[in-house]
Formats: sequence, structure tokens, C-alpha cells
Amino acid sequence: MSELKYYGIAEITKKHIFGRLCRQKDPLPLLFNGSGIEVVVTGSDLWIDLETDNDFHEPWVAYELNGAFMGRQMLLAGEHSLCLFRNMEPSTPKRVRFYRELQAMSEDEKCKVLVKGLRLDGEFMGVPVYDKKIEFVGDSITSGEGTYGEITDTDWLAMYMSVSQNYATMTAKALNADFHFISQGGWGVYCGWDNDVRHNIPSVYEKVCGLATGPANEAMGTQEMYDFSTWPSDAVIINLGTNDASAFNMPPLLNPEDGKMYAQRRNADGSHNREDILKFENAVSSFLKMVRKNNPKAVIVWCYGMLGIDLLLPITEAMNEYKNETGDNNVFFFQLPNTNSETFGAHMHPGVKAHEAAARELVGFLKEKLGI
Amino acid sequence: MSELKYYGIAEITKKHIFGRLCRQKDPLPLLFNGSGIEVVVTGSDLWIDLETDNDFHEPWVAYELNGAFMGRQMLLAGEHSLCLFRNMEPSTPKRVRFYRELQAMSEDEKCKVLVKGLRLDGEFMGVPVYDKKIEFVGDSITSGEGTYGEITDTDWLAMYMSVSQNYATMTAKALNADFHFISQGGWGVYCGWDNDVRHNIPSVYEKVCGLATGPANEAMGTQEMYDFSTWPSDAVIINLGTNDASAFNMPPLLNPEDGKMYAQRRNADGSHNREDILKFENAVSSFLKMVRKNNPKAVIVWCYGMLGIDLLLPITEAMNEYKNETGDNNVFFFQLPNTNSETFGAHMHPGVKAHEAAARELVGFLKEKLGI
Amino acid sequence: MSELKYYGIAEITKKHIFGRLCRQKDPLPLLFNGSGIEVVVTGSDLWIDLETDNDFHEPWVAYELNGAFMGRQMLLAGEHSLCLFRNMEPSTPKRVRFYRELQAMSEDEKCKVLVKGLRLDGEFMGVPVYDKKIEFVGDSITSGEGTYGEITDTDWLAMYMSVSQNYATMTAKALNADFHFISQGGWGVYCGWDNDVRHNIPSVYEKVCGLATGPANEAMGTQEMYDFSTWPSDAVIINLGTNDASAFNMPPLLNPEDGKMYAQRRNADGSHNREDILKFENAVSSFLKMVRKNNPKAVIVWCYGMLGIDLLLPITEAMNEYKNETGDNNVFFFQLPNTNSETFGAHMHPGVKAHEAAARELVGFLKEKLGI
Amino acid sequence: MSELKYYGIAEITKKHIFGRLCRQKDPLPLLFNGSGIEVVVTGSDLWIDLETDNDFHEPWVAYELNGAFMGRQMLLAGEHSLCLFRNMEPSTPKRVRFYRELQAMSEDEKCKVLVKGLRLDGEFMGVPVYDKKIEFVGDSITSGEGTYGEITDTDWLAMYMSVSQNYATMTAKALNADFHFISQGGWGVYCGWDNDVRHNIPSVYEKVCGLATGPANEAMGTQEMYDFSTWPSDAVIINLGTNDASAFNMPPLLNPEDGKMYAQRRNADGSHNREDILKFENAVSSFLKMVRKNNPKAVIVWCYGMLGIDLLLPITEAMNEYKNETGDNNVFFFQLPNTNSETFGAHMHPGVKAHEAAARELVGFLKEKLGI
Repeated sequence: MSELKYYGIAEITKKHIFGRLCRQKDPLPLLFNGSGIEVVVTGSDLWIDLETDNDFHEPWVAYELNGAFMGRQMLLAGEHSLCLFRNMEPSTPKRVRFYRELQAMSEDEKCKVLVKGLRLDGEFMGVPVYDKKIEFVGDSITSGEGTYGEITDTDWLAMYMSVSQNYATMTAKALNADFHFISQGGWGVYCGWDNDVRHNIPSVYEKVCGLATGPANEAMGTQEMYDFSTWPSDAVIINLGTNDASAFNMPPLLNPEDGKMYAQRRNADGSHNREDILKFENAVSSFLKMVRKNNPKAVIVWCYGMLGIDLLLPITEAMNEYKNETGDNNVFFFQLPNTNSETFGAHMHPGVKAHEAAARELVGFLKEKLGI
Repeated sequence: MSELKYYGIAEITKKHIFGRLCRQKDPLPLLFNGSGIEVVVTGSDLWIDLETDNDFHEPWVAYELNGAFMGRQMLLAGEHSLCLFRNMEPSTPKRVRFYRELQAMSEDEKCKVLVKGLRLDGEFMGVPVYDKKIEFVGDSITSGEGTYGEITDTDWLAMYMSVSQNYATMTAKALNADFHFISQGGWGVYCGWDNDVRHNIPSVYEKVCGLATGPANEAMGTQEMYDFSTWPSDAVIINLGTNDASAFNMPPLLNPEDGKMYAQRRNADGSHNREDILKFENAVSSFLKMVRKNNPKAVIVWCYGMLGIDLLLPITEAMNEYKNETGDNNVFFFQLPNTNSETFGAHMHPGVKAHEAAARELVGFLKEKLGI
Repeated sequence: MSELKYYGIAEITKKHIFGRLCRQKDPLPLLFNGSGIEVVVTGSDLWIDLETDNDFHEPWVAYELNGAFMGRQMLLAGEHSLCLFRNMEPSTPKRVRFYRELQAMSEDEKCKVLVKGLRLDGEFMGVPVYDKKIEFVGDSITSGEGTYGEITDTDWLAMYMSVSQNYATMTAKALNADFHFISQGGWGVYCGWDNDVRHNIPSVYEKVCGLATGPANEAMGTQEMYDFSTWPSDAVIINLGTNDASAFNMPPLLNPEDGKMYAQRRNADGSHNREDILKFENAVSSFLKMVRKNNPKAVIVWCYGMLGIDLLLPITEAMNEYKNETGDNNVFFFQLPNTNSETFGAHMHPGVKAHEAAARELVGFLKEKLGI
Repeated sequence: MSELKYYGIAEITKKHIFGRLCRQKDPLPLLFNGSGIEVVVTGSDLWIDLETDNDFHEPWVAYELNGAFMGRQMLLAGEHSLCLFRNMEPSTPKRVRFYRELQAMSEDEKCKVLVKGLRLDGEFMGVPVYDKKIEFVGDSITSGEGTYGEITDTDWLAMYMSVSQNYATMTAKALNADFHFISQGGWGVYCGWDNDVRHNIPSVYEKVCGLATGPANEAMGTQEMYDFSTWPSDAVIINLGTNDASAFNMPPLLNPEDGKMYAQRRNADGSHNREDILKFENAVSSFLKMVRKNNPKAVIVWCYGMLGIDLLLPITEAMNEYKNETGDNNVFFFQLPNTNSETFGAHMHPGVKAHEAAARELVGFLKEKLGI
């Protein structure tokens, strides 16, 4: 190893950043699951310097070397300098992707991962140019909840979530696509799993990272409006509806913001209350308009089914209404394979095999729609 | 082997018959793919006596011993006496299912398979009682086209179709269900693959076997109205829409019955013509009413996707309309996995692996809906 | 269809014959499992004319169209004319392989399948030229016993054996190899599963078809010495030892030919009696000499393990002794994957999945050894 | 979280230690790959305190929660306090296994991992009692080389080795077995891959950790004779021979210890030189004696084949010689499935799928031999 030289993140021009960017660029916040940095370097050793913080939910990170998963660990609050590789053959270019495993944590204002810089004894080379840009919008499934952990584990913890074993990442890799995530466990398109109407993804979609609240996050610009033109997506994959379906089985919940009780109701015969279904459907079609407005060229695919298809017909009813109203023909519904007894992961969520199955089907569909 | 004794089909009371029955019971016509006879017998040898006829499309038959596929062959016009097993241990009960591989042939009036009787040196035992009754309604996919034959084979021939390697049979077996088939290659719910509006399954659904025409078939009662109360189904699986989707890519076709040209059209931008989509959707919702009328208790599942999902949103739009109009909540849409380069069979149709994948997903869904 | 024209088997020059040939060529006896005839033809219809006979064990046959399995049936004693395809597009060449599923039956002198000729409305084209020649020598595993039938079936019957779902055929196909079978259920290299010392494959290996006895078979030349130079093999796969292993668990058996009792014994501690192991090992090394003498260029691979590896070390001890004595370095041992609870077929024999697993491993090894 | 309490490793009585123990117990050295500590605890948070050192080859560690892989990281020289879980439901017992991923490094005297203690806000519960004890003896395959990393990676680095994705660990888990590893990449039973005769596993087998040299290691007792009676194994799996086979393709090598050149030679026809094969075979049979002396009750299984079977017959020749000389009947040879183009990992070594395939076969065999 030669002497390592430190490069502040801002002075590294040859890098690829995954995930939405906020105003603050130095140090670089990794706001979402999948947010990360990729470089191609010569040299024998590479280190990354980070600053992290958290309260209840500690961030997890992982990294790949030349496309292969290499390590995964939690990072507790503080300054970190992690070695990503050492003693490698210096002249061969190495591609390294370092990324956040944990979703943006709406329940932990302190949770953050900042990349300050890299230390290296080689040169930065040109970085990968991806063929497509895909945004994945979802809930705990897209946050990879349960992709780590034993099937009997039931705590709701950061460590069970991942990008490293996730249908979205698998799909993007198979299509050589750059990707953005915006997902939150427990959230829906109209309301959360427990009838919390504040927990809807559309309310945060147009902000840089609406999920990251509190003064520290706001200071970085997370609550500003996101400029979608900086990363014009080729496809937006929406995987929402699973928590909206759960809400129909839960008791009413008080929304502290307006002091009202909210509940998605079932009829006496067990069927969904039509009025409440229409609330959900309005949320679906409104969200499609919002996504289309911000992603004018994108194939929009509403995926659903990894944890049942209770709301399949309402989702498609709303999609049809949206299509009829707007004439938008670049919107599709796609059912993903259900998780079964052989594919469950931790916490009654899809495991790795369920994510692999979903990716296999979705990749086939996207290849056709993206002309790959 | 002791002396074989002949039993006319009518005198065998301990038998299970698969498939819709027509007025003629002796000899027993196997009208549809999957139509067959099942017995449990002691004795060392069992034979079946048949009479078959055909013009272009010869019938194929297959049989199982104790649930395992044993043989498959074509039967050309004439009288046949086939040995189903011989020299087996006499006292052990053997279960044998003999069935028609080939769909009802709307294009071959002479095509028929009649079971005249069995020859046996043992006793007839009680036959299986299945837990559920499932009707499968479909096109070439449900007729198993391409489940036999090499991927490069492109002729349209009887021998490539089967029940022995078919998602519908696999699904029924996994659920211990009795099953009826009514399927026809090239047909749709509104029109056939080539815009032939006569080739729609609803037009034949309520007849005993509307697909089997001509004087000989009519004499057996195939064109009479079917009495659905004789076999009250627990589930009806409709797998239609693939040919309706093809029609949008085909030139107009003359319907000789009314002398008019028919075509499902695309708009200049490639999207489906709305007027024509509504014709299709009307056919879907009307068919759902017809199916519901005749199957009051059944879970109705519209399956789609083994050869693409071009009409997924129109199908669900029609289903939602049907649901809203009728309040019927026992109707579901279910997307089946698409066929891919590793799962194609002959003639650009799903191969065995595609049928296995479809059955795997469908079984999971039906278990939930049928409370199994 | 044009008029069919009959071609006697002898006048068809463009044909490929699988399996050892005997003196009688017209009609052509299919002596072994896998023995068959392959042609490439134009025309719309193809028929095959056969004469068969049997006592207890009826022959089964199967056929492929363009490499894909199409049909399988038993043939009872008599004259048969089977249609192999009809109404196909006439100008496209079709490749058809018709073959015997059932092993040569040492216990049924009458069992035979004779090919008399073909009937066709097209032309015979050039036939496939295979890259390699492989001889498979074995017992019930190589006879495909259990590849058809339900796992609970326990009769010992012709219908459970096959070539159509068999590791040997799968291996040959993957290597584009012509193949010969010589296998017999229950037989070993030294003795049969029940200590019958007459049931050893080496005693019949050098005859054309030593397994086919009785006046009718002898008249065809089955008991004559086989001329190995007519089909110089590139590889000989010996899959023997499973029945020799069983013999150690069975009571002594009287050999009616010499009036003596024979038994492979175990020691008090359950280990194999050394003296008896040496009898087995002598049989192994002697057989290797016999195989080498007749197949001077062949890679010889002793495969073992689909039903346990009790005699693995004795087999390799004999192989090493043979190698040391002869200096023959073109002899290899190869363990095949064991059959497990998920891969068993009928009659406690390897099922299709076990055969697939064996072929997968063996193909990899043979590619290396045959330089493919 | 309550206050964390520190427990020195020596005061924790309720723990299970994986891997051979040396004289030094506090702090506890994790000498081998797979060496680790397992506890079952209540409480919300668990930390482990470590001290590590290294020169070129940094140690990697990984850990499991309730049997599921959770994290994996490198540890550079220094003191570490790693959080293994936090904020979990306090009353539920959690099982944690923390272990060394990296083999004992014969080439890095400084490489070490010491466990100093745990910090916890709960109670230690009873630890798992494993049904069997299995020792795995091997080379780079057993060190899991290539189970991490991209197929194109070719550096020889610590990070590509693992216990977390390793046939040995998978096998032990499937059998609910405690396990010891002793493996070293590049080493053989007679010589290393490059003809280095010092690199033979028998020379280090009887020492506590003969691979760990230098003053620091020796001070912990690694070079002392290991007392096998402290952990009487039920099975010893030897997976050696792959590097001995490579040696026949390599140039002669100087042994600095005696100043002589060593080479395993091939004959002019490419076959192995008999004299050199006998050196190898002597090493095999001598090693079997050594293993048996130290493991009197163990089933000894020589596994081979994940990277070819060049020396299969020599290994079995030596095994047969050993058996004949000693009368030991509890010794077996077992061929593992070869790695193929779909199962390779990094650095031309078996990848995860190859390890899974090997474990699947080996588990079946061991179940039979261990009477499970």
C-alpha cells in the first residue's frame, strides 16, 4: 500500500450517486434505502469516511465489490472510517458501491448517514453509465423488511430491512439501471396499515425526502420540493396497497392533526365498504397524476401482490379511471407472485426467495416495456 | 390372470366421470379435454373398449395409474381395446384414470371418443370423492397447446395439446378437485385471434358441448342446454383474453354469418381503440353474468397473463363494472406468470414449466379462496 | 395427405439405428431398451409397421418428434401399424425416433419388437450424424425402472421401465451421442440382488444380446458373439454394483446349474466378508478387462451411487488393481447423486428427478473426458 | 434499554464455543474459521468486545441472530465493541452466534481475533445442545474461498473466504451439529498446490492450531498438542486432495527447510508418475491413521470432487490399503458434486450454489451414517 490520500466527497468528480440528492452535497447525505455512492478506482486500498447518527433506529450499510455483496453492518452514532478493500492488486480497476440498507426513517429524526470522503492510494476512473433510470416507490416490501432475519423474528427493527436482498435492486441490476428508492414500512397510498391517514406516500413524494423530518434533516433540504428534471426516470414502479388493505382489518385511529377518527370499513358480509374503497381509489388515481406530472416520459407500473391481492380490483379500477380521464396509455398494472410458506422471510414479510421471484417476473415485463 | 369379464359402461356404477355429461351415456362420449373415466379396481388386468372417429384432428388419449402418468397415444378412427394394466398383484386396489387429451374440436365434426366398457378380472371398488369441483374455461392455453412438441414445432396439430401436462390439471390435483374443461384454441371472450366474432366461448358455454357440432354430435345432445345444477362448481377459472388481444393486431375478417367485416382496431399511437375495447369489456362483463347465473356458489377467478397482459386493464375494468352493477363480491382477477424463454413449449405456447409455474401460483390463491 | 407408400426396413437406406444389431435385419429386432430407428422425412404422414410378441412382460415403446417426447404405449402380441404423425406441413423435414422402452427381457423369451417397415407420403432425408458413441451397461437403474409409476407402486412390471426418462438417454442427448444400452434389472457384476450368480452382466456382455434367450431369439442371432468393431464406442458407462450390494443382505440361493448354494456374507460386526468382497472385486476387474478388450479406444467410466454407495470402496479397489495390472489410464470412477425422498420414483427406484440429477453431473464429467 | 452490564468472557458460564480451544481462555482466541461463541440471552441490547490484530490478512467476522445471517465485516487491528442487536423485545430469548469468517492464517502471524466479553442488559439463558460433533478438515474449499466475491475476482484475499456461506456450516446446521474447522487454502494432504511439501494438513492436525505460528500465537498455546478427548467427534470430514492434484501440473519447488527440490511428476503420456502417486497415497493412509487415533468413535468421510476428481482413484486406493491394514470399517469415501459454470464463485472456486449442492448430498450421506 502506498500512502492513502483523502478526497472530500465534493472534490471527487468521477463518482455515481444513487438516490435523490438534497441541497446539502458535502458531506453527502444518503437519505433513502439504496442511496449510495459508486466509484471505480485503481490502488490497493480504499476507505470511506462517514458520519452517522440515530436514536431508536440505527442505520445499516452494505457494500459491493465489482458487483458482489461483500459486507453489511450497523453504524451507531459517530464518525466512522471503514475500509472497503485492502491489499488488492493496485493496477486493476475495482468498482465499489457503498449504500444505505435502511429506509429513510420517518420515526427517527436523528437517523442519518453522511459520506464525508474517500481515502485511496490510486486513481478515480470513469464510473458506470447505466442504461435506464428506475424509481421504486413502496412500503415495507420495497424497504426489504424481512429480507434479513429468521422467519420467527417479529420485532420491527432496522436490521431486518435491506437493499442488498431486494426485488427492486435485483430488477435494476438485471436491467443495468440506475435506481431511486422512496419507500416506508407501514405506509400506503391512502393510509397506513393502522388507519393512520398521515402515513401516505403521496404526501411525501414530491419533497426531496419528505420522510426525513426534524430540524437537522430540514437543514439539509429534505423538505424542499424535489426537482424531478434532474433525474428523468424511464420507469416508476409503484408497489403500494398492501398497507391500505390491512387498514380494512384494523380499528379506527385518531389523527392527532385534525382530532378525527379514521377507519377503512368492511360491510357486514365482509366486503369492503364502497365509500372507503373510493377514498383509496381517489388516492391511487391522484397519485398517478402526481407521478405522471413529475415523470413525463416514464413507464408507470403499479406492482402488487407479494403479500396478497385484496385490493387488486380497486387499484385497477382507479387506474382505469385515471387512464380514461387522462388518456395516459403508458401506465400498467403488474401482479407480483405472492409470498408463500417457502419464501417468507422475517416478520411475516417476503424473504429473499420471494424477492427473487418478484424480480424475475418484473424484469421480463420491464424489458418489454422499456424495449430492452 | 383370471378370465376377463366385460362390463358395459352403463352397468359400472362405481366410477367417476370427469367432464360434462351429455344425454347419451352409453357408450359414453368424452366430449372435452380432460373428460374421462376413473375407476378403482382389484384384479390383475384392466382393459378399456373404445370407439373413435375423426377427420383432420385425431383424438389423443392418456391414462394414469394410481395418479402417475403411464401412457399417451393417438387413436385413429375405429374400435379399440386398450390394455391399461396387466399382471398386477390382484388383491391391491388400483386407481386408473383414462382421459381425453384433445380439446373438443370445433373444426372436426367427426372427432369423437366413446367409452363402451371395461374388461376386468377383479372387482370395482368405491371411487375417489373429490373435495372440490372446479371448471376451467379457456383457450389454447387451457387446451394445453404446446405442452408436447419441440419449441421449434409450428404446425397446429392435435398432438401438441394435452391435459396430462396442463396447469388446470395440476391445479385440480393439488386441491384434490374434480374438474371440467371447456376450452378452445384460438377463441376469445369477444372474438377469436383473427377477429372471427363467432369464436367466442360465451356462445357455447351454456350448451352441453357447443363446440361439438354436426349431426352426429347433436344426436348425442351436445347442443342442448347444459344443466349446471348437476355439477355445482366451487370455482370457475376463466383464462380468456389472449386471443382477444391478438385480434387487435390482425386484419379485419369477414363473418360469413352476417356478411360483415369485423376488426378490433388500434389508434394511430398504437393504443387500443376505445370503442373496440368496450366491445371486449361488454363481452367480459356479460360472460361473468352468464357464469354467475349458472354457478351461484362458485368463486369466479379470471386468470390472465401466461402469454402477456395486453388486456389486463380492460379485463379488470369490465370486472369492476360487473361488480359494481351486481354487487357480486366473489369474483377475482389473478395474473399468472408469463411464459419466458426458458418455459416456452411448442408452437410459441406455454410449455410444461410455464404450466407448472402457473399452477403453483394459482393453487396458492385458490387454497385461500376455497378455504383449504 | 398423398398416397402412403410402404418401405420395407431393409430398403430404407437413410436411417439411423440405435442399439446393437443382430444377424437378422429384416424385420429389424429392437433387442434392448433404447434400441430404435430414427429417420428424417418430408411428407405429411408417417406410419411404422411392427410385429411384437410377449408372454408376461409386454414391450413398451415410445417415440419422439423433432427431439420431443410425443407418445408412449404398450404393445401386445400381434401386428401393429402405428401412426407417428399425420397432417403435418409436408415440405418441412421431420425427425422421428421410435424406440423400445423396455429392457431386453431375460425372463420372457417371447418378448420381442420387430420393425417391418415405414409408410410415408414423402421422402427420406439424410439422418443425424452423432458426435460420439456411448454404451451404457447397467441394471434396473439403467433400465429406467421406476421412472414411470407412482412412488407407492411396488409391482415389478414392464410399464415402470423407460428410456424416455432415463439418465443415460439424457446424457447422450446432451452430448449429441449415439447410444447403446445393455442393462437388466436385478443383475450385478458378480451376482444378482438375490445371490443368483447367473445374473451377472459380464456373462452376456460379449454376446449380441445374451439376455434374449430361447429358440426364437437365438434364431435371430442374439446368442452369437457381438462384433464390437461395428460400433467402436467412445465411452462405456458401467453402472453396476447396486444389486451386488443387495446380495450381502439376502439369504443364500441355490444355483440350479451347479446345485450349489451361493451367498455374499457379512461378518458378525456387519462389515462385508472379505472373501466375498474379493469375489465381487474379481468380477469388477475381470469385467473391466473384457470391456477394454472390446472397446480399445473408449473412456470407461464406472458410475455408482444412485441407490447408495455400499460397495464404493470395493469397486475402486478393483479398479485400482486393474489399473495397476494393466497400466490402463483411461478408466474412471464417478459417483452419481443418491436418490432421496424428493427424487424417488416408483418401486423404490430413482424417479425422473434423480435421473435428471445424475445426467447433469455425468454430462459435466464426460464433456471433460471426451474433450467436448 | 436498561444499563448494559459487562461480562468478561470467563465469567460467562452459559455459552457455547465453536472451534478448538487453546490454553488461553480469557480473552478467548477465535483460532479457526468457524470458531465463535454462541449465547442465548434476554434483554434488549447485546454487544461484544473484541481485540484484533493482523498484518496483510485482516480477519473477517460475521454473526447470526436466531440462526439467520445478520452482518459481516472486516476488523482491522485494534479494540472493537460491536453491537449485535439493540432495542429488541427484552423478555424474548435471542440466540446469537458470533464467529470468525477467516481461516487460521498460516501466512500472517499477527492475525488474531480475541473475544474479551459481552455487554448486556438481560440474562444469559441455557445454550443450545447440539446433537453431534463434526470436524471439517480441508483446504480453500473448506475455508470457503470464493463464496464471496464476483466470479471475475482473482486476488487471493481474506474477504473472499467465509464460514457464513460454506458447505461445512450448511451441513452442520442441517444435522444440528456442533462443528470444528481446520482448513487452509492451498494446502494438501501430501503437499500444497505448488509442490510445497511443508503445506500439508497432517503436519498441523494434532496441534491445537498448528497453522497459527509466531511468538504471540505460541504464547496462547496454538503449537501445543491438542487434546482430542475434550471434544470427541462423531464424524470427521476430510476434504483434501485438490491441491495435491494441482501439484502434478506445477514446476518443482525448493523446500527451504531441507534445501531440496520437490515435484509431483507426470509421465510422458500425461498420466501421474506412480512413485509420486504413492507418496500421496502414503500421506492419505498415514493421515487416516492419525485421524482415527485421535477420533476413535468417529465416522471418517473423505470427501472430494468440488473441483474435479483427478486423484479419486489414488485416494480410494490409499483408503482401501488403510482399511485392509487396520480393519477399520468406519471410513468412507464420498464424491461431492463438481463446480460448474453456473456454480462458480470468485477466484475460480466453488460459489454459494456449489456449496449448497455439496451440503445437500453430504447431509443425506451423513444422516445415514450417523443414524439421524
